[in-house]
Amino acid sequence: MMTRQVWRLQRRPRGDIADGDLEFVEETVPEIAEGQVHVRVLYLSLDPTNRIWMSDMEQYMPPVGLGEPMRGGIVGRVVKSRNPAFAEGELVAGLGAWTDLLVSDGAGLQHMPELPGISIPQAFGTFGVVGPTAYFGLLEIGQPKPGETLVVSAAAGGVGQIVGQIGKLKGCRVIGIAGGAEKCRYVVEELGFDAAIDYKAEDVGAALDRLAPEGVDINFEQVGGPIMSAVLGRMKLFGRVPLCGLISTYNATDLVEEPGRWTLILMRRLTIRGFIVTDFAPRMGECLQALAGWMLEGKVKTRQDIRPGLDRADEWVKLLYSGGNFGKLLVQVSPE
Amino acid sequence: MMTRQVWRLQRRPRGDIADGDLEFVEETVPEIAEGQVHVRVLYLSLDPTNRIWMSDMEQYMPPVGLGEPMRGGIVGRVVKSRNPAFAEGELVAGLGAWTDLLVSDGAGLQHMPELPGISIPQAFGTFGVVGPTAYFGLLEIGQPKPGETLVVSAAAGGVGQIVGQIGKLKGCRVIGIAGGAEKCRYVVEELGFDAAIDYKAEDVGAALDRLAPEGVDINFEQVGGPIMSAVLGRMKLFGRVPLCGLISTYNATDLVEEPGRWTLILMRRLTIRGFIVTDFAPRMGECLQALAGWMLEGKVKTRQDIRPGLDRADEWVKLLYSGGNFGKLLVQVSPE
Repeated sequence: MMTRQVWRLQRRPRGDIADGDLEFVEETVPEIAEGQVHVRVLYLSLDPTNRIWMSDMEQYMPPVGLGEPMRGGIVGRVVKSRNPAFAEGELVAGLGAWTDLLVSDGAGLQHMPELPGISIPQAFGTFGVVGPTAYFGLLEIGQPKPGETLVVSAAAGGVGQIVGQIGKLKGCRVIGIAGGAEKCRYVVEELGFDAAIDYKAEDVGAALDRLAPEGVDINFEQVGGPIMSAVLGRMKLFGRVPLCGLISTYNATDLVEEPGRWTLILMRRLTIRGFIVTDFAPRMGECLQALAGWMLEGKVKTRQDIRPGLDRADEWVKLLYSGGNFGKLLVQVSPE
Repeated sequence: MMTRQVWRLQRRPRGDIADGDLEFVEETVPEIAEGQVHVRVLYLSLDPTNRIWMSDMEQYMPPVGLGEPMRGGIVGRVVKSRNPAFAEGELVAGLGAWTDLLVSDGAGLQHMPELPGISIPQAFGTFGVVGPTAYFGLLEIGQPKPGETLVVSAAAGGVGQIVGQIGKLKGCRVIGIAGGAEKCRYVVEELGFDAAIDYKAEDVGAALDRLAPEGVDINFEQVGGPIMSAVLGRMKLFGRVPLCGLISTYNATDLVEEPGRWTLILMRRLTIRGFIVTDFAPRMGECLQALAGWMLEGKVKTRQDIRPGLDRADEWVKLLYSGGNFGKLLVQVSPE
């Protein structure tokens, strides 16, 4: 009898994720059935949206059911297959669960190419979700033009670091917003952003007035709350807002949204557009080719924040909401 | 010595327009200077944006200066010209002032063709501002597709009536929101909307649940406030919101905007885009050709609400904010 470890959602969090909301269990795995694959999970992706899936708020997929394995992005190796689409030993990635052994019918899993010069966590932590999110959100919705000013919040996070670098490739002046001097230093010195604002140390609005006195053309929005409001108030005419996330609100017990900026949107003729990366699924090939090319040429660098131990995933996921991660947050579940 | 009548802005309104905010004066007109035209104004267009121009809120043009003639759209005949671009007797339209005799250097005035079968107030009240606003807002931002559900607020007003009819031409199911049984009857029976909601007599949200249980694809937004909120809450995935106006807020003494719907915009991947008709100025020819064609074929009808007397313009303009007009509001300033 094989066993596996898995996190199951036992209770919907009220506010911050609390002990007992998720339960870590060891359980036996039934014999593999026709059409199934067993995947040894190497890395688990932790993403802001995890908190949304734990809740029953309005969302873009069904929430995780109570008692069900917690949903998450994974990369791993097929260790057993009774599904002709997957060979044993193959590297696969996709939507799975917080477990070390994924039992799947293959739906939502794709073969993951192994590229020389790009490690598994780097490839998974770039091409899996955050790279395409940055790519489509910035290029399709943001419509960056040379000389424009792009602001990206959560700039040292998984998506933000890529948004800023693509913005630079497109000729934009890029200002990142991040928490702490080290992250700010990183996005400017290592990634080539033009400037960074440490929201923990300075007033974001005042910093924008200094760094972008003419205003902001594109606000790649990931956080919501007062940081979003500070940027929105400084948008230029015909500005664009790819609305990618609202992480500051995900742990709210009673959702109090920032005031509408309807008059501002009207008078400055802004475009606000919400999106989820899967909206662009039919164009994924184009995106992955561009991202891989930029990475191999050294034009886009990505940083992963790899934490050890599936049994601590409930602790690591909270880093996302406190700003404790630095780069794309992954959990190493099994040794490569 | 010639004289003219003119409304001058004496004080910025606080809340509703009050006596003394605008002053009606008779004044002498200096001899025409080189480059100028004198235009006998036939009709003055009164539009929701007039209240914005009276204020010093953030807006898309400079506000009207205190002591200056009140700005407004006009159509009239050139009675004197020392500008080679304009011939005496010619019909012109454009941005002018609340006056019976416009003194202009020609900037913002265009020659207006006289079309057989379309009266001057009908042409001016359709092609001047409201037609292009409806055309570009719906077609460019709304992106209507056959079978989609389109909701338009202020449905019996200048813009709304045209939006709904173009929506029908594009194969949409069109629901108008208007105040009073007569306007609702009009948009359904005379203009061919599929349904209308009388916001003075029924709860807009409940009516939408009944009339559009699947939700709304396009919300052509003109009013803001609780009516906007009712529609936004019922948007479908990938819905579009051409944000054309927020008339319910223009008389507010302290701007309290509707709550942001940031989570909704994100999860349903809505597009919200503010616009002003002049944003589409380079494409005006295409629009006027399409509108005139539809009108001459009887596919688009427009209704004007023509009130007599320039001296009562301050009274007529208030109809816009109380919902007292029925069709595009014009003032007959001089006999044709």
